[in-house]
Amino acid sequence: MTSSSLSERTPTRNLMLFSGRVHPTLAHEVAELLQVDLVPTTAYDFANGEIYVRFDKSVRGCDAFVIQSHAAPINEAIMEQLIMIDALKRASAKRITVVLPFYGYARQDKKHLGREPISARLIADLFLTAGADRLMTVDLHTAQIQGFFDGPVDHLLAMPILTRHVKKKYADKPLAVVSPDAGRIKVAESWANSLGGAPLAFIHKTRDISRPNESKANRVVGDVKGRICILVDDLIDTGGTIVQAAEALMAEGAAEVVIAATHAVFSGPAVDRLKNCSAREVIVTNTLPLSDDKHFDKLTVLSIAPLLAQAVSAVFEDGSVTSLFTE
Amino acid sequence: MTSSSLSERTPTRNLMLFSGRVHPTLAHEVAELLQVDLVPTTAYDFANGEIYVRFDKSVRGCDAFVIQSHAAPINEAIMEQLIMIDALKRASAKRITVVLPFYGYARQDKKHLGREPISARLIADLFLTAGADRLMTVDLHTAQIQGFFDGPVDHLLAMPILTRHVKKKYADKPLAVVSPDAGRIKVAESWANSLGGAPLAFIHKTRDISRPNESKANRVVGDVKGRICILVDDLIDTGGTIVQAAEALMAEGAAEVVIAATHAVFSGPAVDRLKNCSAREVIVTNTLPLSDDKHFDKLTVLSIAPLLAQAVSAVFEDGSVTSLFTE
Amino acid sequence: MTSSSLSERTPTRNLMLFSGRVHPTLAHEVAELLQVDLVPTTAYDFANGEIYVRFDKSVRGCDAFVIQSHAAPINEAIMEQLIMIDALKRASAKRITVVLPFYGYARQDKKHLGREPISARLIADLFLTAGADRLMTVDLHTAQIQGFFDGPVDHLLAMPILTRHVKKKYADKPLAVVSPDAGRIKVAESWANSLGGAPLAFIHKTRDISRPNESKANRVVGDVKGRICILVDDLIDTGGTIVQAAEALMAEGAAEVVIAATHAVFSGPAVDRLKNCSAREVIVTNTLPLSDDKHFDKLTVLSIAPLLAQAVSAVFEDGSVTSLFTE
Amino acid sequence: MTSSSLSERTPTRNLMLFSGRVHPTLAHEVAELLQVDLVPTTAYDFANGEIYVRFDKSVRGCDAFVIQSHAAPINEAIMEQLIMIDALKRASAKRITVVLPFYGYARQDKKHLGREPISARLIADLFLTAGADRLMTVDLHTAQIQGFFDGPVDHLLAMPILTRHVKKKYADKPLAVVSPDAGRIKVAESWANSLGGAPLAFIHKTRDISRPNESKANRVVGDVKGRICILVDDLIDTGGTIVQAAEALMAEGAAEVVIAATHAVFSGPAVDRLKNCSAREVIVTNTLPLSDDKHFDKLTVLSIAPLLAQAVSAVFEDGSVTSLFTE
Amino acid sequence: MTSSSLSERTPTRNLMLFSGRVHPTLAHEVAELLQVDLVPTTAYDFANGEIYVRFDKSVRGCDAFVIQSHAAPINEAIMEQLIMIDALKRASAKRITVVLPFYGYARQDKKHLGREPISARLIADLFLTAGADRLMTVDLHTAQIQGFFDGPVDHLLAMPILTRHVKKKYADKPLAVVSPDAGRIKVAESWANSLGGAPLAFIHKTRDISRPNESKANRVVGDVKGRICILVDDLIDTGGTIVQAAEALMAEGAAEVVIAATHAVFSGPAVDRLKNCSAREVIVTNTLPLSDDKHFDKLTVLSIAPLLAQAVSAVFEDGSVTSLFTE
Amino acid sequence: MTSSSLSERTPTRNLMLFSGRVHPTLAHEVAELLQVDLVPTTAYDFANGEIYVRFDKSVRGCDAFVIQSHAAPINEAIMEQLIMIDALKRASAKRITVVLPFYGYARQDKKHLGREPISARLIADLFLTAGADRLMTVDLHTAQIQGFFDGPVDHLLAMPILTRHVKKKYADKPLAVVSPDAGRIKVAESWANSLGGAPLAFIHKTRDISRPNESKANRVVGDVKGRICILVDDLIDTGGTIVQAAEALMAEGAAEVVIAATHAVFSGPAVDRLKNCSAREVIVTNTLPLSDDKHFDKLTVLSIAPLLAQAVSAVFEDGSVTSLFTE
Repeated sequence: MTSSSLSERTPTRNLMLFSGRVHPTLAHEVAELLQVDLVPTTAYDFANGEIYVRFDKSVRGCDAFVIQSHAAPINEAIMEQLIMIDALKRASAKRITVVLPFYGYARQDKKHLGREPISARLIADLFLTAGADRLMTVDLHTAQIQGFFDGPVDHLLAMPILTRHVKKKYADKPLAVVSPDAGRIKVAESWANSLGGAPLAFIHKTRDISRPNESKANRVVGDVKGRICILVDDLIDTGGTIVQAAEALMAEGAAEVVIAATHAVFSGPAVDRLKNCSAREVIVTNTLPLSDDKHFDKLTVLSIAPLLAQAVSAVFEDGSVTSLFTE
Repeated sequence: MTSSSLSERTPTRNLMLFSGRVHPTLAHEVAELLQVDLVPTTAYDFANGEIYVRFDKSVRGCDAFVIQSHAAPINEAIMEQLIMIDALKRASAKRITVVLPFYGYARQDKKHLGREPISARLIADLFLTAGADRLMTVDLHTAQIQGFFDGPVDHLLAMPILTRHVKKKYADKPLAVVSPDAGRIKVAESWANSLGGAPLAFIHKTRDISRPNESKANRVVGDVKGRICILVDDLIDTGGTIVQAAEALMAEGAAEVVIAATHAVFSGPAVDRLKNCSAREVIVTNTLPLSDDKHFDKLTVLSIAPLLAQAVSAVFEDGSVTSLFTE
Repeated sequence: MTSSSLSERTPTRNLMLFSGRVHPTLAHEVAELLQVDLVPTTAYDFANGEIYVRFDKSVRGCDAFVIQSHAAPINEAIMEQLIMIDALKRASAKRITVVLPFYGYARQDKKHLGREPISARLIADLFLTAGADRLMTVDLHTAQIQGFFDGPVDHLLAMPILTRHVKKKYADKPLAVVSPDAGRIKVAESWANSLGGAPLAFIHKTRDISRPNESKANRVVGDVKGRICILVDDLIDTGGTIVQAAEALMAEGAAEVVIAATHAVFSGPAVDRLKNCSAREVIVTNTLPLSDDKHFDKLTVLSIAPLLAQAVSAVFEDGSVTSLFTE
Repeated sequence: MTSSSLSERTPTRNLMLFSGRVHPTLAHEVAELLQVDLVPTTAYDFANGEIYVRFDKSVRGCDAFVIQSHAAPINEAIMEQLIMIDALKRASAKRITVVLPFYGYARQDKKHLGREPISARLIADLFLTAGADRLMTVDLHTAQIQGFFDGPVDHLLAMPILTRHVKKKYADKPLAVVSPDAGRIKVAESWANSLGGAPLAFIHKTRDISRPNESKANRVVGDVKGRICILVDDLIDTGGTIVQAAEALMAEGAAEVVIAATHAVFSGPAVDRLKNCSAREVIVTNTLPLSDDKHFDKLTVLSIAPLLAQAVSAVFEDGSVTSLFTE
Repeated sequence: MTSSSLSERTPTRNLMLFSGRVHPTLAHEVAELLQVDLVPTTAYDFANGEIYVRFDKSVRGCDAFVIQSHAAPINEAIMEQLIMIDALKRASAKRITVVLPFYGYARQDKKHLGREPISARLIADLFLTAGADRLMTVDLHTAQIQGFFDGPVDHLLAMPILTRHVKKKYADKPLAVVSPDAGRIKVAESWANSLGGAPLAFIHKTRDISRPNESKANRVVGDVKGRICILVDDLIDTGGTIVQAAEALMAEGAAEVVIAATHAVFSGPAVDRLKNCSAREVIVTNTLPLSDDKHFDKLTVLSIAPLLAQAVSAVFEDGSVTSLFTE
Repeated sequence: MTSSSLSERTPTRNLMLFSGRVHPTLAHEVAELLQVDLVPTTAYDFANGEIYVRFDKSVRGCDAFVIQSHAAPINEAIMEQLIMIDALKRASAKRITVVLPFYGYARQDKKHLGREPISARLIADLFLTAGADRLMTVDLHTAQIQGFFDGPVDHLLAMPILTRHVKKKYADKPLAVVSPDAGRIKVAESWANSLGGAPLAFIHKTRDISRPNESKANRVVGDVKGRICILVDDLIDTGGTIVQAAEALMAEGAAEVVIAATHAVFSGPAVDRLKNCSAREVIVTNTLPLSDDKHFDKLTVLSIAPLLAQAVSAVFEDGSVTSLFTE
């Protein structure tokens, strides 16, 4: 061993990809695209529910990417990821990027009423405290959440993946882009631009502010008659809002309704509602795991993995990822 | 002096109100409503533009409220307020509440493009660093900005002040509530509810994302024919967007247009545009100072001071202010 | 309203007691002893598992105590408490004391192996980040965990409650105090002192370090023949270790075995094992909720509520609580 | 016990005064002036030099003032004070004011050369980390050190105490105020103003920058002939600089030399040098302990205790202390 | 693409130089010396004065140097630089060095009176909060300001640039070095040493402490008769102090006066005063922009760019820069 | 100089080893094993005890390891190391690892009584504040102290070094492993496992909790008759406890006693006690300096330097050090 090899060296940077237990399929898909192996990890629950995590090989000095989708049981998912980050920090990972295909609690991004938490900010702070250096996420409920984290956030957009599919399948018909909700027309506007300037509409409804899962749809604002309505949202949770919107569009004379959303939360009655509604197709991505019983005929699931792999690679290589997340 | 008076005492809490140099009229109005005097403050600019501030009486242990509207020259306004907070912190104020009738840089609340700042978060962090314990503000551009500050934020709403005026004056006519922009229909929806369920509409336009002051209005979405259109926004800057919206509404057959906005930024050509547009009335509040040359016949300015005074008093008394800021 | 009432006042401090949804019985018992009502709180899970919390009355300026036992599902319990604290912070509570009758993840208080987290420190940091000013807890797995939180920690000891019961019931018999484990003899030593200098013993066993719930008991070290062995531990999880210890003691000639532990985690096979083991009595406290099916004949549950109430009251009154937690 | 007494109360604030082991005489003098007792404290060194501290009565909720002079062995003094603050923080003191009659390491307030520490900033940060809310100190080496602490600093000035003595004794003679050093003429200027506009002079010397205790005096700049020269400095360490200055002044024709300094560090040869130099009187304060063998005939020691007591009282009462520290 | 290229790489470090809009000439000069291009940046003011910044190429992983002179309008200059840093942080720059040829608010480096801010510390904290890793600056008003920033500060000295010029031009004449002020004689002493041991003098004057721009000169202390007086200061603001000092020196019999200062703030009447005063030459550097109308015959402007370029290069290369900033 | 060499480079990482003045022999031994030189450092005490430190060559961008054993005078040792770290941080070291062969104040790792500090946490926080990125230490008093530092801690174990010696010398005799104290049997258990399953015993004694240096030994628990008892502890301070334990073991019929401990604090009467006790051998390591008068015949000192060198090298090379510190 020469002196120089002891006291001076050119550092190399290693990309290491870690996955929590929530959505291993997606993590493996990303790993394959990156031509790396997921770091073997021991993770289990103790009898009382406490989570134990240990990495089975050295992570010292690595450039770590920790993927976890915040799916139900969502608090387990978050806590497991926090614990993984703590373990990476204490084991001397050089940089820790938290990859959140779906960012939990994003809807609680402001106080709708007094004496409420702002849980989306809390989540950002918890990750910072645990040791996260940066976040990567897809289609936040509101883009302002980027500002909740004190550090770089790569906000990836699934819209190009979804519109590519829509264009291929419905491009030759008269389209309209519809927001199910007054609060999300801005996103619909991006879709409309991306689909060559299709007309816009939205559903004017009243939502009981303290019970966001339930809603009461009303009037269609905008002209949808005879058009294929692309009903777009960031996520589908219980499906109540979007299905009511679909029915309202059909009642208003829409030719057909196609539902498109990035995050398939699909909780409670969502699958039944979607299956039985008058929409022709439901398009989502795999940011969240979908068990077999949540699949149904008119559901199309597009993979988000190429987008994540491209972004991870760009971050690791210090390349520009702007093209991946410019709205 | 007895021993007990030296080593044990019942603390009292003093409300002290401070004002920067931007909008003294509003600060005095608030002070009067609270029956307190503004704390006499020495503040001037050195020849090279550096700001000097000193309080002319002891502030030790006080409950400080520091009012500054972020009006042009806006960076002076922000820096002066930061310096006032630093001086209060170092002079042992017990608690410092920053009162921002208008929160500067609120529109830069996310990265619209890669390699942009999130200035609204930066502003929140600068105030925290200087020593702010809490923020009080009126009608944020987006409510998510509440989550940018790591502490309590009292987000007051001017809508009740504005709708009270509208109801009194136009209640007996058929109304429509219109958003000049796809991104702010949510606010218009609140107005519509508050005005007894008036129909909603919005202007579908394309805005060049890197030049927010200029815009290109397009189609009216929703039915406005024969109605008095209440065109609502959080602020009027150069007035381009809102005036184009007003014209589009008239072209679409609106009976009349009434423009209502909380913050009268009124920069550049705003006054001329508003004066000459076809709107019947322009309603704003005095969250920002309006010099005499910015007043014109059809402008109505409602005072925000009672709302601020009520909120300051409630914060000081540890009373509930939820009723003042529930959306 | 006079001027002085507006700008000067003598603050009062209000004790407000909040409870998560894990162990309401204990919280109500504490509230009753303190002669206060629990603050009415809206809390439920959204369909995808996200937790929603809102307080139903003003908490501005209060001295808040937030009780939550970290019982299964433990990550839900922790996250709910974090969200409650965030809501209190943003609603301007003056001081927030986190009351943890059982501190989750306390056993992961060091790296047993490389690349493990120190979850007990992570938990302390998460509470600090959310807004906690101080912690109050009972019988930590190791007392060093006090040092994980950057602020005051009131570490209450249940031993006096437990030994009072033991003394009353078994004082006239020859006793021995036994630790089920080499790592916890220090605690057994305190018991021995408290029981008038009873002899000490412990079980020398090998525990597979990466699977703490399973263990392999061995030899009894110390003299237990003909004595009533008080087998003491901080918690009983699956009960494997302690039941094997009990059998080893009987095999070694103990007259009887009495098991005493503060925290009745009782997960998996614990109840069956304890019910069927040769111990005469199992004494625990109610720091954790015990459903009806977890009760059995020889189980004695002592209430921790008076200890918590006394400590909350002392903290609120700025009285000394040293007498409550001196080891 | 009534319900209201349990859940609502008017807080009282208790002043509690603590002293490290360095300079108990000063602490007792301050306590007496404040008519309080020093809080009884157990403090000793373990055999290997580690310091143990414990307070012998409850400090919960108190307004704590912790006096320690940073005298030799200075690192012991600092560490003891840090440990006292840590104990106060963990025992729930409400506010902790660190009282430093002499602030250690104040002379290392900048990098004189590359790769040096800025120890004066480090000291400020260490106190903040331990839990200090504010600092109170006397005659900092440079006033900029106030800005090293992130919080309120009460910078008290001993000059009025010293000049009162000088005026009484020498007022009727022609005076000159002399700085022993080019770097401290600003202070001498204050003295000159305070002594009715006496002329100023200074000693132009070269100091080896990396060995501040040794110096090489040169020429007197300014007119001192026939005058009583008041030679002023913030501290006297080994006395080399000031004694050489005194001799230079006498050589230049001064009538007499009177040395005045706030902090009597008096290390190494200081006492001998001062005793034998041609100065007529040496005036200092008791910010630092002076053992009996450090007293000598022409030494006058003025007490700083009234200044400290007045400042502590003003801080406790939230009164103005500006009059005590305005330069 | 091979597997290794994806998961392992040797990082390179890129120097990227950014300039605010205040002093582009200096930034370009530095860029040219470093043989790099300034990163193209979009920056403009919105109509209400809010600043918008965006970088026009990827900055991910770069070693960023952000130059901005704090010239009038100084608060604009500071805010623009803060916003640039925020954008760099969020765009994943690896390290951000803030280059301040002139550090704004440096004169407010302590509380001269009670209830003043310490704005120089505030500025340091604002840069830290925005995301600065280190500062580089030239001739701070007091060297202690280095300690205001919690991180490395490269404090460069312009004196060698200035004295080189003086030596060349005046070396053969009898010189004296004069401080215009009692507080800055230390700097004059360095000059005197650097000029081969020239005698020192200073002006004893009274300055109204709350109005630093105005001053009242008095007596010359030290011998200046028949000498060329080099009157040195860190900056010239309105020029009042220094011009009065020049006149006092001439009145005292100086042969000639040469004024030398690093920072040409030149506000208000400065140019007129300097032009018309009896000094023979005024020597400054270009740390601040000087518009054409601020140039005058006897003004010499030396470039600071080589010093900055050398320091940036040394920082980037991890070389020693001590030789550049040792006093 | 080419453009690329100016604006782009491949960084190298330099290992630089620094030593405080406490235990240079150990530092040199480590340096030699690593084939590096200790960085030449100027360090001395000013007359009043303040410590001055300066590094004599550039440290910009280096990977710094700062060795200091916390031996008496222990507060000097800690403060010197803090000052070294501050200087490294301000001189732009890239990463700072604090190497603590013996961690001072580790025994004050919890509040044994109310109103005590947790000095071991304070120490961790002081190092963090000064600028430490990570800690490396040997045989902490309790492993939980790892969790006191907010960052990576390499906790090295000396046991393999000690047991290797014991095995070689005593392997063929019947052994027992004995803990002198109920609180450290866990460590003894590791020894027993490492020595092939030797039986365990401990001394049941009462220790006055507020005076840890003095103790009162009692009964041996476990069977030690006829065995060579390896009496193990983490440290020997005054030696009282361990020597009493040795005598108790002999009285109980032990064949011989061998004392083994990592840290030879050896304060006060320790050497005399050990020299004169009935133990056959005392085995320690050189984590602390041992002056010549502290050596005695039956003392064996094993070097810890190879362990430290191996760990430093692994950290520098980003290799795994788990094998060095797995319990």
